[in-house]
Amino acid sequence: MYKFSNKSRLSAYVGIATIGLSMISGTSAEAGEVSETAYIFNTLSFLIHGFLVMFMAAGFAMLESGLVRSKNVATICLKNISLYAVAGFMFYLVGYNAMYAGVDGGFIGTFMPWSGDNTDALAGNFDGGYAAESDWFFQMVFVATTASIVSGTIAERIKLWPFLIFVAFMAAVIYPIQGAWQWGGGWLAELGFSDFAGSTIVHSAGGWAALAGAIVLGARKGKFVSGGVHPLPGSNLPMATLGTFILWLGWFGFNGGSQLALGSAADAVAISTIYINTNMAAVGGVIAALIMTQLIYKKVDLTMVLNGALAGLVSITAAPDTPTLSSAFMIGAVGGVLVVFAVPLLDRLKIDDVVGAVSVHLVCGIWGTLAVPLTNDSATFMNQLIGVVSVGGFVFGLSMIAWLVLKFTMGIRVSEEDEMMGLDQAELGMEAYPEFGRGSQTV
Amino acid sequence: MYKFSNKSRLSAYVGIATIGLSMISGTSAEAGEVSETAYIFNTLSFLIHGFLVMFMAAGFAMLESGLVRSKNVATICLKNISLYAVAGFMFYLVGYNAMYAGVDGGFIGTFMPWSGDNTDALAGNFDGGYAAESDWFFQMVFVATTASIVSGTIAERIKLWPFLIFVAFMAAVIYPIQGAWQWGGGWLAELGFSDFAGSTIVHSAGGWAALAGAIVLGARKGKFVSGGVHPLPGSNLPMATLGTFILWLGWFGFNGGSQLALGSAADAVAISTIYINTNMAAVGGVIAALIMTQLIYKKVDLTMVLNGALAGLVSITAAPDTPTLSSAFMIGAVGGVLVVFAVPLLDRLKIDDVVGAVSVHLVCGIWGTLAVPLTNDSATFMNQLIGVVSVGGFVFGLSMIAWLVLKFTMGIRVSEEDEMMGLDQAELGMEAYPEFGRGSQTV
Amino acid sequence: MYKFSNKSRLSAYVGIATIGLSMISGTSAEAGEVSETAYIFNTLSFLIHGFLVMFMAAGFAMLESGLVRSKNVATICLKNISLYAVAGFMFYLVGYNAMYAGVDGGFIGTFMPWSGDNTDALAGNFDGGYAAESDWFFQMVFVATTASIVSGTIAERIKLWPFLIFVAFMAAVIYPIQGAWQWGGGWLAELGFSDFAGSTIVHSAGGWAALAGAIVLGARKGKFVSGGVHPLPGSNLPMATLGTFILWLGWFGFNGGSQLALGSAADAVAISTIYINTNMAAVGGVIAALIMTQLIYKKVDLTMVLNGALAGLVSITAAPDTPTLSSAFMIGAVGGVLVVFAVPLLDRLKIDDVVGAVSVHLVCGIWGTLAVPLTNDSATFMNQLIGVVSVGGFVFGLSMIAWLVLKFTMGIRVSEEDEMMGLDQAELGMEAYPEFGRGSQTV
Repeated sequence: MYKFSNKSRLSAYVGIATIGLSMISGTSAEAGEVSETAYIFNTLSFLIHGFLVMFMAAGFAMLESGLVRSKNVATICLKNISLYAVAGFMFYLVGYNAMYAGVDGGFIGTFMPWSGDNTDALAGNFDGGYAAESDWFFQMVFVATTASIVSGTIAERIKLWPFLIFVAFMAAVIYPIQGAWQWGGGWLAELGFSDFAGSTIVHSAGGWAALAGAIVLGARKGKFVSGGVHPLPGSNLPMATLGTFILWLGWFGFNGGSQLALGSAADAVAISTIYINTNMAAVGGVIAALIMTQLIYKKVDLTMVLNGALAGLVSITAAPDTPTLSSAFMIGAVGGVLVVFAVPLLDRLKIDDVVGAVSVHLVCGIWGTLAVPLTNDSATFMNQLIGVVSVGGFVFGLSMIAWLVLKFTMGIRVSEEDEMMGLDQAELGMEAYPEFGRGSQTV
Repeated sequence: MYKFSNKSRLSAYVGIATIGLSMISGTSAEAGEVSETAYIFNTLSFLIHGFLVMFMAAGFAMLESGLVRSKNVATICLKNISLYAVAGFMFYLVGYNAMYAGVDGGFIGTFMPWSGDNTDALAGNFDGGYAAESDWFFQMVFVATTASIVSGTIAERIKLWPFLIFVAFMAAVIYPIQGAWQWGGGWLAELGFSDFAGSTIVHSAGGWAALAGAIVLGARKGKFVSGGVHPLPGSNLPMATLGTFILWLGWFGFNGGSQLALGSAADAVAISTIYINTNMAAVGGVIAALIMTQLIYKKVDLTMVLNGALAGLVSITAAPDTPTLSSAFMIGAVGGVLVVFAVPLLDRLKIDDVVGAVSVHLVCGIWGTLAVPLTNDSATFMNQLIGVVSVGGFVFGLSMIAWLVLKFTMGIRVSEEDEMMGLDQAELGMEAYPEFGRGSQTV
Repeated sequence: MYKFSNKSRLSAYVGIATIGLSMISGTSAEAGEVSETAYIFNTLSFLIHGFLVMFMAAGFAMLESGLVRSKNVATICLKNISLYAVAGFMFYLVGYNAMYAGVDGGFIGTFMPWSGDNTDALAGNFDGGYAAESDWFFQMVFVATTASIVSGTIAERIKLWPFLIFVAFMAAVIYPIQGAWQWGGGWLAELGFSDFAGSTIVHSAGGWAALAGAIVLGARKGKFVSGGVHPLPGSNLPMATLGTFILWLGWFGFNGGSQLALGSAADAVAISTIYINTNMAAVGGVIAALIMTQLIYKKVDLTMVLNGALAGLVSITAAPDTPTLSSAFMIGAVGGVLVVFAVPLLDRLKIDDVVGAVSVHLVCGIWGTLAVPLTNDSATFMNQLIGVVSVGGFVFGLSMIAWLVLKFTMGIRVSEEDEMMGLDQAELGMEAYPEFGRGSQTV
């Protein structure tokens, strides 16, 4: 029953089925259009690409662990593994069906627990296209990614439990509703908005929620002092580098799996194209950040280059299938340039984004979405803009309300004393690196 | 010749073959029941899931590196890469055939080197089902996992070489014999014991061996002082977090690959179900550990939450294919609760388990095995109990003997002076973090 | 058009096609020899194995981060992510076609940007065998690996930009030309030289380039003092261990994917064989290094054991498909022994190789290439020697010229003052671990 509910995400698949799958089906054509072999390939694609996206949770955890100060490292690790758990659980309870069940051109699905049905396939009719569970797995890791984007921006000052409550609300309500508009076959999909793997639906959505949180929370103590910006350097840059590489790896799953099928040669060609464009956009982001930081600051900045890679990846995510390799490089490179300017801009606005997630995921998510018409004739700039603005307004507005409610009920920010001491001591009573250097000392 | 020797592990496959594989075989039905396409899918499943399980060796290495003190980190790294090598080598020399060759309802196979045979497949008869080498690869990484469980518990005080000798004995004798009882088609399999991917055969087996080692070795100096428990905090919690995420990733291979086939739609459905149940059990473990540590200690404990994730994963491993998502969540959550109580219980018993591996792998391995009848009608509580007790008695008894023999021959524990100095200096003459803080200082 | 240009790399594939693929094609035989199912399998193999090799970039980054001193860690991270980007970009711009387009028994292809063509496959003729993009992805990550080998040897003293220029030259000119000789179907392939996955074409090529760099650069200050060798220990050994495990994982992709096909049972058997031989060679390297360091130094050396694993992997790479498991173990073990002797030998020659990459990749790359005739009757020792010497002479000579040109134009070595301060402060103006211990202090 779900296979046609997420219309947009499956449009590529359905279109391709008429070209390719019928060829494989061969002798079992009487059972339907999809062969058992295609069914297995489609399912396998969800599983392989799903586990790559799942591993992005580790990527975010390492990136953020490396970019916060050592006194807050254990807490950010805890938040990352917990948000993955909470987001997945809420997506099961209500999120998936809110996003994909019975949206039918509208605004919202049904808030009911997910359950899969493979009766047809087990009876020999493979027209469902793939195992329902494999699709659920793949969609679930996407909501976890969206939540991961939030944790980095608002690190080092937010309390654990309000954060997890926000994640639960995000996974159950915010993400699925705007997702329903597009991937659930809602009004944005009918309009003709195009967002292949989620520059808007995942990345800018996560970025908007993070931005709202950063505004409501305020900056970390000591970040903006007497009009200037005081850098608070990350404690472990190789760990941040590892996190970036893991995210890069995971992005092959994120974009490649969003083809939603591998049952035909056309799908195999599409996924292969997606892989190399995804990679090349990250390459463009790295090279742009390298050159820009050298030119502007006379010294290359590692964290900016890491964010440049991620910027390229976010930028290509709205349309990884249509560009040529050189276009993909340029789309990613523009993302890399944007991030180099967005980070100091946010600082000037006194918005404290600890890891640069707003610059990477929101700014480049918007860029990537608006750039789709450059390589995909079926998209228009106006439709893309409508998608960006409507998702942005909805996610930012609802997130702002959620953060404010949390602020005025249970409170979202640790005390000034706890912030100085570090969240690891204050919230967990432990240290991430008890034997190294300053450890829990105030910085 | 091996394809029917590991009967139990293949029961799912054989059952499914009659439903699914014949459909694909189509035009080549005259060659046998299994088509070439199914043969490739089955083999690919072993390879993909096998490399995920192989990477669990890195997960254990990082988890344990993060949870020991910095003066013992290089040594635990060395033990982890060496145990993977030694276990795999011994499994080749004698372990695989001891586990799978000619067990036939009995207690033991033949202790001979493994060699694969794919003559039939290369001649066009694919009834072997998969490349023998891919099966060997998948089974080999399981024995490495079993050995990895041991290293964490007895860290920070055991000598390198006796540890590796134990690993060799475990991979050559202990693990294969009890494995033969079940997965080799021995008496437990005939009895009707059910352990899909190894809550008992891998996890509690590893846990029993670790427990025996911890008892024979005794606690680390300074752990239990004047009746109290002195915490010896881990040196690098983000690394432990990374290790947990890697293990979580690897578990998709561990449980998913244990379907032992991907050649039919039914297999694809089963593996997909296994993926989401495995994930949801870990989610349950995380959430349970979060809530329990908040309630009991008023502060959430990161290491307990990491172990909660692993507890959920171990708990679901005996039956990842049969539960619903909500049952999988509950099975994992109970595991998460168990581990929160088991860790202090072991402390009270003055058993020093450095990383909590006995609580995670033994306690939750037993729980997961006994929970199988809750979701699988073909299992009975009594048969499950017989499996748990017989494997436990055998592995614990034989491990105890092995540890005692090692203790009274070459000695297994470093000197008190070396323990204070740290094993890195004493055993390797190096430091894991020579430039950071206390480094080799005694803690 | 490329499918037959990289003749040697495809020879296994073409040979197998006549056995296996025709069986699957069945009903669509009229369209050609290759079925759509085989086309998807082949493509999927490139993608899965390609992302594993891509992740080796993270492995090198972690290995090198762990083995340099903390004052140079951010810089080595930057170099690793940048070299992956630069190498991939140059391989797109000119490298791929220089290596694979129109070599035809000669010395060089055409230096033109790569572009894929899948028109035939989309029209239903799958004789191309796989999506061109998936092949490009797989070949591209190989050149990145080659460049990664260089960065470790010459770490802690080379300037960033000259290093990246060398990488660009390597990816655009050096690597593709010698690659064209063999995998592009050039004169070495016609001669009968055999190098399945690149012991020579990738590993010794990278090693020769690194050696030339190390000679031109000279040793780090303080390494060779008053005739003795002063050890400069790595700052983070668990990170180096993680890097080794990631590389080990990636090697399944490196060697397994080099079968270049998965469309027949024969391919599935071959890849499975390659996986277990690759693994067993690493096992041999680990065990040999364990025993050798214990015997020679009376203490096991972790970094030597890590390099032993890599030595085994490099050694088997020239022929991972032909040995038995016991032969693979021996080939890897000899590699492990070689590395234990090569590291101090280079020290005695006053060649400063920070991470041991020359010992691992060059020495064992030569050994592995010369060992091919031991397990593969179609190779001869003389042809192997011609390949080793010609590739070595070409790569070493051209690299030496490149390094010297860079040295006498822009300069390649940081000032003595910068070297003492650390490259992180000098070149990037940041610290990798600002809160830990000595941080940027001179060591």
